[in-house]
Amino acid sequence: MTGSTAATFTADDYRARMGRAARAAAEAGLAGLLVAPGPDLVWLTGYTPPAVTERLTLLVLAAGQDPVLVVPALEAPDAHRAAGASALTLRDWTDGKDPYAATAALLDASGRFGISDNAWALHLLALQQALPGSSYASLTEALPMLRAVKDAAELDLMAAAGAAADATFEEIRNVPFAGRRESEVAADLDRLLRGHGHEHVDFTIVASGPNGADPHHEAGERVIARGDMIVLDFGGLRDGYGSDTSRTVHVGEPTDEERRVHDVVREAQEAGFRAVRPGAPCQDVDRAARRVIADAGYGEYFIHRTGHGIGVTTHEPPYMIEGEERPLVPGMCFSVEPGIYLPGRFGVRIEDIVTVTEDGGRRLNTTTRELVIVE
Amino acid sequence: MTGSTAATFTADDYRARMGRAARAAAEAGLAGLLVAPGPDLVWLTGYTPPAVTERLTLLVLAAGQDPVLVVPALEAPDAHRAAGASALTLRDWTDGKDPYAATAALLDASGRFGISDNAWALHLLALQQALPGSSYASLTEALPMLRAVKDAAELDLMAAAGAAADATFEEIRNVPFAGRRESEVAADLDRLLRGHGHEHVDFTIVASGPNGADPHHEAGERVIARGDMIVLDFGGLRDGYGSDTSRTVHVGEPTDEERRVHDVVREAQEAGFRAVRPGAPCQDVDRAARRVIADAGYGEYFIHRTGHGIGVTTHEPPYMIEGEERPLVPGMCFSVEPGIYLPGRFGVRIEDIVTVTEDGGRRLNTTTRELVIVE
Repeated sequence: MTGSTAATFTADDYRARMGRAARAAAEAGLAGLLVAPGPDLVWLTGYTPPAVTERLTLLVLAAGQDPVLVVPALEAPDAHRAAGASALTLRDWTDGKDPYAATAALLDASGRFGISDNAWALHLLALQQALPGSSYASLTEALPMLRAVKDAAELDLMAAAGAAADATFEEIRNVPFAGRRESEVAADLDRLLRGHGHEHVDFTIVASGPNGADPHHEAGERVIARGDMIVLDFGGLRDGYGSDTSRTVHVGEPTDEERRVHDVVREAQEAGFRAVRPGAPCQDVDRAARRVIADAGYGEYFIHRTGHGIGVTTHEPPYMIEGEERPLVPGMCFSVEPGIYLPGRFGVRIEDIVTVTEDGGRRLNTTTRELVIVE
Repeated sequence: MTGSTAATFTADDYRARMGRAARAAAEAGLAGLLVAPGPDLVWLTGYTPPAVTERLTLLVLAAGQDPVLVVPALEAPDAHRAAGASALTLRDWTDGKDPYAATAALLDASGRFGISDNAWALHLLALQQALPGSSYASLTEALPMLRAVKDAAELDLMAAAGAAADATFEEIRNVPFAGRRESEVAADLDRLLRGHGHEHVDFTIVASGPNGADPHHEAGERVIARGDMIVLDFGGLRDGYGSDTSRTVHVGEPTDEERRVHDVVREAQEAGFRAVRPGAPCQDVDRAARRVIADAGYGEYFIHRTGHGIGVTTHEPPYMIEGEERPLVPGMCFSVEPGIYLPGRFGVRIEDIVTVTEDGGRRLNTTTRELVIVE
């Protein structure tokens, strides 16, 4: 999900971002960037179209020319109102005309272009056909860290989103759990996140008992009972920037095994956090967390990467995963969220958003990571 | 937006749809279809992933093999619960593994494949790289009418969604307009659509006075006043199938010009509707509506196509637009929605969903198309 970034950023901010992106593209040997509606576009221009449809909307950042936003004529008035509109040229097209020919005319016919990950295949195929000599790389491949390093104003917004998620946890831990459906607790999370300023809620996972063993279980009709472990994982966008935190709670007193598994995940999360420092490869964060879990004998039950970047979207580079050797840079923001999932029984996940500082990491979520007992 | 299609369809229904789609692909000379999360996937399998992310989810329908759904291991439990799950083979992949190599292994390395319009460029580029000898066409290009013809059960759902939108209009025309913000009336529309069974609301356009001249204006902070024309355009998904209707209302008595413009649009909409019959090219519907508006001298103010298909998504082929020569077929459902937009002044749009019958068309929206006076 992406949303508006409120009135925080001005046309000058967007002009500067587009300039930096164009320079980064040139340094990467690209003839330009093709930016689709979604997180890249909202970050570069402040613009979110009223709907993402088959009609082409595309920002063209090409070497040696001013930024051009190709938009359907229908939506030109919306684009004109975007905060970054005065930093670019709008080129609108009318139903029945060929927007790909018009876009191709802006591009080096034999150039290589970076294109937003989430650009539609429909549009990419049409551009490939219009310019057979051109080639393309996804932004994740070509410029993975384009949005990864947040500036001071962005970090303030990330911190505010994190604080809102924390305030949500402090309230949700006091609601009744036993006897209510997961979906009811999820509705509470939704309401609380919005109450604390989120304009979008992306996920409100309430995974109780055996459901907790499915890392992406959302919330269903299962009635929560005493003795359940419950993974809570929730977040969204507040003023256009993301929150994402997980805590695992227990209804009543946990068993020794439940407490032990929770301890292992907590230590893994701490180890992952401590691995965060400028210059360390991203995979070090994954390795540090994974080692704790493997050493405790639960390695096969940690079935996902340790973290993902977050910013104007809740999932973006950098990824904390084996094989990601790019270095951490101050200003990057990402999750550290190891978990253990015991099929048919229960799961535990603990997640904070962490930002890289000059000498380590700083948590943007600070609620207790001890096992919280709920009723 | 796409949603769940409730419990209406069974694994057998999805098996039949996948079989038909595979045969249509073979007849079109394709080696198979690559289906991304969204309307194509929900229509073919009943499956909607918990979130659409950078992790690859892709249905492979290839000649001579059973359907395979490639899913992230994290989301395999969700996919297992999809209504069509028993009609396909799940192939899950774990973070850190290469899902493209695994997918490529299922494909004819020199084949041509149809791929969902909204598949991410990230995934298409990775498949192109994994199989340099393969080629791709968007489903809109290769099999545009894949989902266009609705069967009897689908038509029942479309009719129910249309009736719910009509019931919404009958209530909204009685709410107070003058003195309230557009966004407040839009909130009423949202509440009414949900109250009448919609699980997703896609748009609630309330475009008053000069805002009505922007066909895609949503709803803003403008306070509605006596004398305003107001375009209302709203819809979403009910039991997984779409509604979309527009009516233009007036606060108090309209001027002669306002009434005249509304009459022209109403006649254009009627002419478009009457052009609907099996075998007629789609563009005839556009031409019929456009001619009425052009003859009345407003041709330059009708700045969009006359209609779009609708089904499990609110925008899909067939498009009623000049140049679309494919024939109408019984069971197709689409909007007929001409409009006139006078910049800085006001706009008028009238829209019904129409389905093609054996001998003409049937409206799925039946509220009055006369100019309704509101307070």
